[in-house]
This record gives sequence, structure tokens and C-alpha cells, in this order.
Amino acid sequence: MPENHNSFEVIGWTPEGAVRFLDQTMLPGQVVYREVDTIEGMVEAIKALRVRGAPLIGISAAMGLAAAARKRREAGGSTSREEDLEWLRQAALTLTDARPTAVNLKWAVDRLVKRASQTSPDEGGAGFDDALRQEAQAVWDEDQSMCRAIGEVGASLIRDGSTVMTHCNAGKLATGGIGTALGGIYAAVEQSRKLRVYSCEARPLRQGSRLTAWELTQSGVPCTVVVDSAAGSVMSNGGVDLVVVGADRIAANGDVANKIGTYNLALLAEAHGIPFYVAAPRSTFDLSIASGEDIPIELRSAEEIERAPLAEAHNPAFDVTPARLITSIITDAGLIEPPYPENIRKVLG
Amino acid sequence: MPENHNSFEVIGWTPEGAVRFLDQTMLPGQVVYREVDTIEGMVEAIKALRVRGAPLIGISAAMGLAAAARKRREAGGSTSREEDLEWLRQAALTLTDARPTAVNLKWAVDRLVKRASQTSPDEGGAGFDDALRQEAQAVWDEDQSMCRAIGEVGASLIRDGSTVMTHCNAGKLATGGIGTALGGIYAAVEQSRKLRVYSCEARPLRQGSRLTAWELTQSGVPCTVVVDSAAGSVMSNGGVDLVVVGADRIAANGDVANKIGTYNLALLAEAHGIPFYVAAPRSTFDLSIASGEDIPIELRSAEEIERAPLAEAHNPAFDVTPARLITSIITDAGLIEPPYPENIRKVLG
Repeated sequence: MPENHNSFEVIGWTPEGAVRFLDQTMLPGQVVYREVDTIEGMVEAIKALRVRGAPLIGISAAMGLAAAARKRREAGGSTSREEDLEWLRQAALTLTDARPTAVNLKWAVDRLVKRASQTSPDEGGAGFDDALRQEAQAVWDEDQSMCRAIGEVGASLIRDGSTVMTHCNAGKLATGGIGTALGGIYAAVEQSRKLRVYSCEARPLRQGSRLTAWELTQSGVPCTVVVDSAAGSVMSNGGVDLVVVGADRIAANGDVANKIGTYNLALLAEAHGIPFYVAAPRSTFDLSIASGEDIPIELRSAEEIERAPLAEAHNPAFDVTPARLITSIITDAGLIEPPYPENIRKVLG
Repeated sequence: MPENHNSFEVIGWTPEGAVRFLDQTMLPGQVVYREVDTIEGMVEAIKALRVRGAPLIGISAAMGLAAAARKRREAGGSTSREEDLEWLRQAALTLTDARPTAVNLKWAVDRLVKRASQTSPDEGGAGFDDALRQEAQAVWDEDQSMCRAIGEVGASLIRDGSTVMTHCNAGKLATGGIGTALGGIYAAVEQSRKLRVYSCEARPLRQGSRLTAWELTQSGVPCTVVVDSAAGSVMSNGGVDLVVVGADRIAANGDVANKIGTYNLALLAEAHGIPFYVAAPRSTFDLSIASGEDIPIELRSAEEIERAPLAEAHNPAFDVTPARLITSIITDAGLIEPPYPENIRKVLG
């Protein structure tokens, strides 16, 4: 089971086998848990960002798929193994479509489909369901280990007394463990290093000021929030030693899709000579995609941006940071430095 | 009297001689006017950003000073010309302290103090009050003319079919006329050019999405709002032909203090090879200040940034954009191009 340093649990199973998760849309004001055991319920939770962060989306989808399969069988929805597998494939597609940019989502549900299809017909429905539950648990457990490994690599880049800037949330609330971008911060703090963290707000949904600021301070790490547009000002005043962000998808050439504003920060860091790191597990790399140009970018509803009634809004959820702006990529397989296509291939290929 | 293209009036006099202004904190939801005839009332309106924008702050302070002087005399507060002048100097200081970054505020109230001190004692209290009112009206009228002149210069830089990005609000709601940054847009539209405007939101107080988006669409100019952190994404997708912003203070070397996030935009524009213009009247230049380092930057309350309860916030209202990032400065005295210290001195010195 996952490490629990926290006063909060991000995700878990109910005794009945449903998925129980912290509804992140209610933070930081309220700590509310919800239970889901249907595909529709999990799709809604993912689309509405009740669970979010590329690794946690993968874990949630996998656990939701296992929970919904069990529920379906209990309700008498299963008639044959072939039909179970067909239902599973359709459900996996439905989940994958919930958010197009995070590659971990497809990676996780594909694992479950593969695992179920490898069960023997002799194992029966119970064997099928157990395999799904075990595989979902493995996705979660492995993510926790990956976070720990990423954290150790990340911590090696953070000197005592450093000030780290981060964007959006790539922490405990985005993963099954201590986070990716924030993993290095937690690991450095465990090693008794003193740090300051600037969390950019991450408009429009403010995952930085709501989620990163909440989980860091809940975990005893001091955090100062700035609006996204103050990043340049803070950097030019000498206030930032390094920037660390997460990723939703990394192309074969090292281009990174991540929360809108990541590209801004990378350009600002370059202009100020500040190292810019991306932290992500191996499952975030999509080697089938040559460059960032081919990563699908989710456009979210204009309604997320409050504005004068006659004005339009353009609301891309992600942007693409070109590999040339990335100092190195912190992964559970070690630090990947430029040149990227070559070194990514060496480590992951 | 000012031009009135609008369905809204930004500022004016009541029949009794008080200042009547549109409370910009209520926009875009409600169009609410307030009346003020005391120094305390005007200081509150300026600090709370009910009136904002460097030129409009200057106009409001000047009109408020004239209104409060008249009110004080009517209430029997005046006993001698010397005391009137001393009251005026103190009131001017109090107003100047309301917002430290905008230089137009000090410039405007200093004009009124000088004008009053030049009245003849023979003119009596009525002459003193009339001089203040006339000078305040002149500050307003001149700003309107300056906006028109700035708009004509700005329009010459905007080709038909262009997409302009702007930040915060430097329009009708920030001035006594058609605006500074938005002045060029309005003038170009008057000349039948088709434009698209991207308005950055300008967190934390969202002057872009609330005010710029409101006044542009109220004036028939289409406007698309983006969050501040989407600027890089929009630029990299080829969506921006030029950036135009206003200014709160310009140092002798051309460094510009303006709304937080202006520096980010200038760096992003440079990285994408997009021209970056600053538009401001001559009163925004402070030739007594050598460079941006010496411009006082207002830190506003952390409470303006909603966040997790244990987290801190750092909330500078302005940043400094170094002159080297500014393609040219659009003024009522014409376009000032680099090299800046020399050409600023030539035009304004």
C-alpha cells in the first residue's frame, strides 16, 4: 500500500471495491471524498478534474475500470468472457477519451485490458476481476515507487537554502506517491535541506494556489503563491534558483506538453539563466510521437475564464515546451540530459 | 468636454462640483457610479482601484482635490489663504501616497498646487477654488487630447487584419479619453481596419478580462480573453502580430514600470520576434529617475490572491521592463525609438 505521510489520502479502495478519492475541485476549502464504481462516474471525475495530474489520472482510470468491471458482474451484466473483454475495451476507450493530452491515461487502461485478456478462461469471472484489481493496484504501487525514485533524483539537484519555483500541481495530489516535480522537494526536505517554494497560481483553475500550496503546507513545507504573471519579476529579482514542473506527455524528441504556462516559465527561466527541469515517470513518454507538434492539446471550456459578457475566451489547457529549453528531465530511470532524442532513446528505448 | 463615443462615462463632475466616477471594481457585472468630494473618499477610491490606470488616477486625484477644496470652503473650513495653501499641500501629499508607482498622480496634484499658489490674493476664495477646478479640468482635457495623439501614432503601427495582444487595461477606463495602449486600437478601428485583440487576464484583479474586454466589446471591438500564462502558447502558434501595453512610470533610460506581467510579455515577445510597444503620455515619463531600479514598486495585499490558508503570497502590483525589450514608445509627442536615453531626451528633455 502507498506511503502515508499525510493527513490526507488522495485515492483508495472502499471495502466494497469502489474507488474512493479526494475531490480536488473542493480544495483548499473543503476535504471531501467521493466514491465511484462506474465508468461514467470516473469519466465525470476525470473531466471535471476531481482527480487530475497525469499519473493520478492513469491510476484513477485503472482503478475505476477494475471497480466498474466488478460492479457490472455483481449486477449480472456479464454473460461471457468474450463480452467481458469487449466491454472492457469499450470502457478503456471511453476513459481514454476523457482527457486527450495525458498519455498515462491510455497507458494505464491498456495495461488492464492486456492483463485481463491474458487470464485463462478457467479462472472464471472472479479471476478476470481479480486480475484487473491486481493490475490497477500495480499501476498505483509502481507509480508510488516511481515518485520515490524521481524524488531522489530531483533532490540531488536541490541544494540547501534553494528557492524552487513550480507551476500547477505535480505533487501528492497528482500522483500515487510523493509527486514528480514536488517529489524532489519532499525528498530534499526529508534530507533536512531548507527550501523555499514559489508556487505559480496556474490560472484558470488555480491548481498552484489551491492544490500545490495546500499539499506543501499540509506536509510542513513553506510555500509562497505568486500570480503566473509575476514569475518574471520574481526571477529578475534573483528570487529563483531552479524551476521544476511535471509533464502530461513527452515526445520522443524531448518536447514536453504540460499545464498552460509551462512554456512561458521555460522561456523566462532561459532569459534569466535559471535551470528548468521537467520531472515525470517513464509512462509519461510517448515515443510514438516524434515532436510536440503532434501532441493533441485539450481546449477546455471558455466558461472556465470569467470575463466581460460579450468577450470570447481561448482556453488551451496545455502548452508545448520545446526540448531546447529543458535543462534535463528527471525520471525514475535517472536524469536524462541533452542531447534528447539520443539520451531519451538510450534510457527508455 | 471629453469625447463621448461610449455608452459609459468614466468620470465627470456633479452639478454640485463633486467628482462622479464609474466604480471599476464592480465591472463587468454592474455599472455603478459613485460621488466623492473629500480627500479621504478619493484616496479610498484610488487605493481600492475604483478608479485606476495611471492617467485616470492623475485626473481623479486632481478633480478630487478641487472638489474637496470647494467642499471645505463651503463647510467653513477656510480661514486664510495661507491655511488654504497649507491644506492643499497636505492633501496633495496624502493623494500622492495613495499609490506609489504611478507618476501621473504626483504630476497632476503638483500642477494644482502650483496653479493655486499663483492665484492672486485679490481673487479671494472663489478665485482659488475656480483655479483648482480649471486646472483639474485642464488635466482631464489635455489627457483626452494626449490619448487622441497617442492613438493616431499607435494606429500607424497596426496594419489591417492584425492581431494585437494587450495586458491589463490602458484604455478608456484608464484615461480621460480613448486610452493609451487601446487608443491605437480604437483609432485603427475608426480608420476601418479590421483587428483582433487578445486581452491577457491580468491576475490577480483581472483588469484585462473585466475591464479591457468590457470596454472593447462595449465599443464594438471584438476581444478574446486568455489567461496570462497562455500568452506564450498564443504567440508560438503565430497568433500575435504586435503587443501594446500602457505604463505607470517610464524612467529616463526608457525602463517601464507597468502592471505585473508586462515584463513576462516583453520577454515572450522578444523570444518570438514580435514587436513590443509601450504607449503613454508625456506625463508618465519621470526624467528624475535614471533607471527602472529606482522606480518604487507597490506591493499590494496578499489577500488579493486566494490560496490555501497556510500559504503565503507575494503580490507586487507592477514590474519593470528594461528598455532593451521595448521596440518603441508611443507618445503624444510622436514615436520614440531606440536608442532611448538619447531619443527620450530629444523628444521630452
